[in-house]
Amino acid sequence: MQISKEQISNHNEQFFASHQNKLNFTFSEVENAEAIIQKIMQFSIAIPSWALGTGSTRFGRFPGGGEPRNLEEKIEDVGLLRALDKTSNAISLHIPWDTPTNPAEIKTLAAQHGLAFDAVNSNTFQDQADQKYSYKFGSLQNVNKAIRKQAVDHNIDVIKHGINLGSKSLTVWLSDGSCFPGQLNFKKAFENTLESLQEIYAALPDDWKLLVEYKAFEPNFYSMTIGDWGQSLLFANKLGKKAYTLVDLGHHLPNANIEQIVSLLMMEGKLGGFHFNDSKYGDDDLTVGSIKPYQLFLIFNELTQGIQANNPPFEKGSNFGWMIDASHNIKDPLEDLLQSVEAIQIAYAQSLLVDTIALENARENNDVAQAQEILQRAYRTDVRALVAEARLRTECALSPIQLFRNLKVRENLVNVRGSKTFATGL
Amino acid sequence: MQISKEQISNHNEQFFASHQNKLNFTFSEVENAEAIIQKIMQFSIAIPSWALGTGSTRFGRFPGGGEPRNLEEKIEDVGLLRALDKTSNAISLHIPWDTPTNPAEIKTLAAQHGLAFDAVNSNTFQDQADQKYSYKFGSLQNVNKAIRKQAVDHNIDVIKHGINLGSKSLTVWLSDGSCFPGQLNFKKAFENTLESLQEIYAALPDDWKLLVEYKAFEPNFYSMTIGDWGQSLLFANKLGKKAYTLVDLGHHLPNANIEQIVSLLMMEGKLGGFHFNDSKYGDDDLTVGSIKPYQLFLIFNELTQGIQANNPPFEKGSNFGWMIDASHNIKDPLEDLLQSVEAIQIAYAQSLLVDTIALENARENNDVAQAQEILQRAYRTDVRALVAEARLRTECALSPIQLFRNLKVRENLVNVRGSKTFATGL
Amino acid sequence: MQISKEQISNHNEQFFASHQNKLNFTFSEVENAEAIIQKIMQFSIAIPSWALGTGSTRFGRFPGGGEPRNLEEKIEDVGLLRALDKTSNAISLHIPWDTPTNPAEIKTLAAQHGLAFDAVNSNTFQDQADQKYSYKFGSLQNVNKAIRKQAVDHNIDVIKHGINLGSKSLTVWLSDGSCFPGQLNFKKAFENTLESLQEIYAALPDDWKLLVEYKAFEPNFYSMTIGDWGQSLLFANKLGKKAYTLVDLGHHLPNANIEQIVSLLMMEGKLGGFHFNDSKYGDDDLTVGSIKPYQLFLIFNELTQGIQANNPPFEKGSNFGWMIDASHNIKDPLEDLLQSVEAIQIAYAQSLLVDTIALENARENNDVAQAQEILQRAYRTDVRALVAEARLRTECALSPIQLFRNLKVRENLVNVRGSKTFATGL
Amino acid sequence: MQISKEQISNHNEQFFASHQNKLNFTFSEVENAEAIIQKIMQFSIAIPSWALGTGSTRFGRFPGGGEPRNLEEKIEDVGLLRALDKTSNAISLHIPWDTPTNPAEIKTLAAQHGLAFDAVNSNTFQDQADQKYSYKFGSLQNVNKAIRKQAVDHNIDVIKHGINLGSKSLTVWLSDGSCFPGQLNFKKAFENTLESLQEIYAALPDDWKLLVEYKAFEPNFYSMTIGDWGQSLLFANKLGKKAYTLVDLGHHLPNANIEQIVSLLMMEGKLGGFHFNDSKYGDDDLTVGSIKPYQLFLIFNELTQGIQANNPPFEKGSNFGWMIDASHNIKDPLEDLLQSVEAIQIAYAQSLLVDTIALENARENNDVAQAQEILQRAYRTDVRALVAEARLRTECALSPIQLFRNLKVRENLVNVRGSKTFATGL
Repeated sequence: MQISKEQISNHNEQFFASHQNKLNFTFSEVENAEAIIQKIMQFSIAIPSWALGTGSTRFGRFPGGGEPRNLEEKIEDVGLLRALDKTSNAISLHIPWDTPTNPAEIKTLAAQHGLAFDAVNSNTFQDQADQKYSYKFGSLQNVNKAIRKQAVDHNIDVIKHGINLGSKSLTVWLSDGSCFPGQLNFKKAFENTLESLQEIYAALPDDWKLLVEYKAFEPNFYSMTIGDWGQSLLFANKLGKKAYTLVDLGHHLPNANIEQIVSLLMMEGKLGGFHFNDSKYGDDDLTVGSIKPYQLFLIFNELTQGIQANNPPFEKGSNFGWMIDASHNIKDPLEDLLQSVEAIQIAYAQSLLVDTIALENARENNDVAQAQEILQRAYRTDVRALVAEARLRTECALSPIQLFRNLKVRENLVNVRGSKTFATGL
Repeated sequence: MQISKEQISNHNEQFFASHQNKLNFTFSEVENAEAIIQKIMQFSIAIPSWALGTGSTRFGRFPGGGEPRNLEEKIEDVGLLRALDKTSNAISLHIPWDTPTNPAEIKTLAAQHGLAFDAVNSNTFQDQADQKYSYKFGSLQNVNKAIRKQAVDHNIDVIKHGINLGSKSLTVWLSDGSCFPGQLNFKKAFENTLESLQEIYAALPDDWKLLVEYKAFEPNFYSMTIGDWGQSLLFANKLGKKAYTLVDLGHHLPNANIEQIVSLLMMEGKLGGFHFNDSKYGDDDLTVGSIKPYQLFLIFNELTQGIQANNPPFEKGSNFGWMIDASHNIKDPLEDLLQSVEAIQIAYAQSLLVDTIALENARENNDVAQAQEILQRAYRTDVRALVAEARLRTECALSPIQLFRNLKVRENLVNVRGSKTFATGL
Repeated sequence: MQISKEQISNHNEQFFASHQNKLNFTFSEVENAEAIIQKIMQFSIAIPSWALGTGSTRFGRFPGGGEPRNLEEKIEDVGLLRALDKTSNAISLHIPWDTPTNPAEIKTLAAQHGLAFDAVNSNTFQDQADQKYSYKFGSLQNVNKAIRKQAVDHNIDVIKHGINLGSKSLTVWLSDGSCFPGQLNFKKAFENTLESLQEIYAALPDDWKLLVEYKAFEPNFYSMTIGDWGQSLLFANKLGKKAYTLVDLGHHLPNANIEQIVSLLMMEGKLGGFHFNDSKYGDDDLTVGSIKPYQLFLIFNELTQGIQANNPPFEKGSNFGWMIDASHNIKDPLEDLLQSVEAIQIAYAQSLLVDTIALENARENNDVAQAQEILQRAYRTDVRALVAEARLRTECALSPIQLFRNLKVRENLVNVRGSKTFATGL
Repeated sequence: MQISKEQISNHNEQFFASHQNKLNFTFSEVENAEAIIQKIMQFSIAIPSWALGTGSTRFGRFPGGGEPRNLEEKIEDVGLLRALDKTSNAISLHIPWDTPTNPAEIKTLAAQHGLAFDAVNSNTFQDQADQKYSYKFGSLQNVNKAIRKQAVDHNIDVIKHGINLGSKSLTVWLSDGSCFPGQLNFKKAFENTLESLQEIYAALPDDWKLLVEYKAFEPNFYSMTIGDWGQSLLFANKLGKKAYTLVDLGHHLPNANIEQIVSLLMMEGKLGGFHFNDSKYGDDDLTVGSIKPYQLFLIFNELTQGIQANNPPFEKGSNFGWMIDASHNIKDPLEDLLQSVEAIQIAYAQSLLVDTIALENARENNDVAQAQEILQRAYRTDVRALVAEARLRTECALSPIQLFRNLKVRENLVNVRGSKTFATGL
């Protein structure tokens, strides 16, 4: 299914007057409104291939129907998103869930939808049917050299798939760790993991990045071998300049100050990527901005401030690295992604509203109340019209979810694909 | 020091055009704008007497100057707040920090400032110089009947002070608990506490409320004898219909869903009061809305929904029970309170924006994405003009903090009171 | 496979001298050693049918081989445990995972293994193939009366299965709750759940218990409709005297004081059951005593103290209610259960060692250091010889895991059942 | 007051037979019993000067009487501890709380008690009366260069005091951070702190260590500028080889795996020191081993394993760096320290019991259940007789707390010093 420009313009017509009223007001209030619209128009985010189906918890899965049955249909789904927002401009594949058997065709198909290929993701946290060794006790950390080699080889294979598609980075997320005290020699686990990562790094093209993701817990419940930003940074520094840390919002201990971590990683030149989602208790993988939207704004504020001196890391044409990583257990996955994208756009726009000169000035004067006023002034401003205008100018929907529902997109997908489909993923 | 109507109207004049532009737009967008303004105008919150000086942590205190040196100056300070926002309409006293030696005069003074007396607060978590027994091992829970009696008598004494001033409720917050496993027989501690509370309850006038506050930890670090809403509700139910649970936002274990607790307590008819603040790690006592403004909105959403069937519990003329309980370690206490009040007003206004019929409809249809859209539509709306208009109509400042600074209120207070004053409190 | 008495006595022979040396010393040190042995011999715990296979996380499952393929083999597995420890004397079934098609035969089989049937467990957190309505948006809380009825009917059906087998209690654990703010009307969700529970309660035989389990989060990640002990107790009180609260160690917010909850529930006469496991981060379902053994001891200390005035709730012949609820992702499930049982026995024995008179005396004198000394004196005492002696006297193994390995039990099970079996469960 | 050898030997006599019985049994069970006793005899730990008085929370302080009124009396107190356990062999001073006005005399006094001087501690988290600038908004991070210089100069001054007394390390714990979003430019705060630390480092003698302590939160409640081990290690690495990370058990986010952090820091050669205490919720500063004794054992297990390849860092004659950092709000401070020392000795002894060869073997075979068995076998062994024997052989008390009480040490101190004394500290 594809959404036509006519469908979009018909939809936009009915909201146009109302939108224009809001936009005019916003322009009268926000000095850099036009600049913000331009930034939003340039903004791009990757959609992971595994976010297009219904997610599950260990207690079960409640499928929703019309899920993509293969990589082609996943690309089609992201194409639908892109048609609605022009921000979901890339797809991030997961091997082996999305192994492209004919990369040239896949690449052409993606191009038809205007999509690039973001980071490729390896999987050594599950066993595959045809696999010689099990990852039950870890992969890159494994005490068994042969198992480590199998995992390294898989990662090298993933890089090759990525090269074929035009990806420029490999994300390594390891579930490696231990469930019980005593199970692991922490030092050896670290050293084995480092050795394995070095072998993968050696196979990385020069213009690629290796993104080392960390996670505090789950699925291992006593220790994780890459458990926090400090450990990830240790690995990245020991690996070399192509290695970076990847931050996933849900992968922290309770109450961690993620925006400070972001700032320090940028200071060290080692922030390589971001997985956006939201959570209340653990790695809940909820819709971006659904639980702690102010935290999201504060993180974007650090990003926006941090990139002023560097090349902008999250605009179109860059090496991407910015992805939504949520799991849609009870919402329509595409609607959930549309909500996530909008939450990110809003946080980004608000961060662009911050009067950074006044903020630095308040900081220099230890004017704490004023610093808070400056941030909250930006955060409390309604920027939805700016975000909508960016969509309008890129021939997208003023109200993506509403159009999605009006066009009965999901019903169409169910008709074509069936109601009992199953997308690969968690 | 007092702020004159002329000073306020001069201030408002310069912002008037800009305000009117925002207000007009908001009226064009928000159907019930006028009703929201009316609600905000009726809204009242109490300021605790101990929030007017610089707070401390166990590591130290950094005083700020111009702090109120006695109860009269505390009333003066709340009077300043009220002049700026007409929402800080009551003061909540803490005995013995604010024992009124001449209640009639104090009452007259408060009335001159337009202030009522909200809940009175007892203190059995510190030892006073003239006290016979120590509360080192608890007060109402103490294994020693004589110590319990001393604490009960103190509470009865606090009630008497409250009667003299026109208060209608007593808030009991106990630090009682234990620091080490084994220290306490939990059952006996509960039973002793219950017996003590029953004696206090017996001395309560018929038209008073007993507000039983709970806290998860600190200053006791192994157990708290009234540690969560479940325990508080047990006490309230065993005491009788004048006893209620009081919720302080900072008094929960990490990640607790406070809005659900609020909803259940309202369902049981036992939500008696609220202490507003914000926090990231524990009972941080930060400015309301400074860390998790969306959570604040969600809580107000439950309150607003819950009070539709009952008498509104937090409007002027009611029995108050709504208080800011923050500690201002590094901000000017009055500026901090102005920020807190505005954060509460904004959250309240946003909750009034929620389309409750559409929300219930979405819930009936398990339309989770739509339910989120409805809440976030309200939350993302900029309601600051409505809040400002409520101030304007009540002869208050369009921009309270700016006026506070322009009038050099703090400098004035320092001139009068000195820079090394010390307000009683933590 | 069955373990013969001869195999056990051969095994015990080699350890006997060493054991006797330890036992003699323990008797010389522990005054009530004989009484403790008796208590351990009377102690019984239930094994849940779903703990006999490899558990999984949402990231995958690493099967171990030789898993029971049906209810008969599950009973066989618990029979093996019982042969080794005479403490795993009951099995707790989960419907529909273990629906007994021929209850009479199942009952006979269990009796042959010396096993009783503990609480039966319903499942409304997953959809079954033949089910009319989905529980995607909850079961007993559902906005749809027909879905609630389906869930109620299932629970009544589970009671019937239980009656056939001789169970005396139904455990209701609900995953009901919400993943996103706005999704649920908390009050209606509570009321619907209450109504549903009342219908189940009405179908409960007079000599049965209804155990209402609570959980703080997962699989719902914003709210749980029975989320903490306060909510569970509200339900239990509204239901009536056959309803009790069930405590699962892993179902709390971080840092919760579970031993205090246990004490208060016993005070209220509403502690109905216990699910033992251990955890570091969330509901990790790790081996009992593997992370926080001192907490386990403190909980048992409350239990032991609490039951002195009542009938002992966890000894043989009682209504059981004490169960291990762990998930064995990376250990052999039977070895894990042997470790869990021993950890529980040790904690129980240590709690029986506490000098309760001296402890109460220290408490009456606020002698906090002494109270700690008394608890830690018991906890630091090595009671393994007493636990082993209880096994010896009941014709069980001095060293169960060692015997399990020496007899190559798992290898035997793999030979019979195959290495690719799959036990129903999570 | 001093405890005589005769008092000790009289005390020991009455317990001797019972002790000998336990010791004999332990020798019969524990192969390396004699080696463990030797290790315990060589073990040394520092007592911080601020732990000798009653601690406080922000809610108040309940003094206990007989507290040391000056540095001389603090040394006397640690001398008492050392007389009882020969493990509390050093004192760690805090400037300005314990500024030695006559270092030569202080040194002599300490030597008379057999005490060395461990790390000296600076204080830039409080303002002193004679101080030019306030640390309200931070010290080493401050935006004001003059304030940073004042803090740097203070640290250099502390080093000088330390040199006079024979200390070999400086511990820098900063409360620097922020309470509100926006307050701090994280990058600048880091860079300012680094610059300040570099200036301090430059003043450090060649044979000294700079110990960089981290803390997750409190007294700053939004961010801490040295907030976790990753940040501390960044600083230590940028500073040079005399700089190390110091771990305080209570300074972590909930559920952090501290033993893994310890292992990684040892791997990096950057573990410089340890502050022992225990906690349930935050930085509760409770008696060591009173809440999570198994965690303490696991940490010691990493230390014991980690130091096999290096020089033992925590034995007598080494550069110390091992300290108890607890706060004794409701226990007698000296009794609390005796309990803490014993808990540490027990954990250390148990770690020496671990069969490391078998453990590594189990790890190489992914025998998780066996690895747990090996650790818990050590942990469940009662090693108190070995610890007591180490005391006996060093002419100390078999039962320190009992002797402390029998000799009425506290009553004696109250008689000499009075019941309303106040020791400097928190």
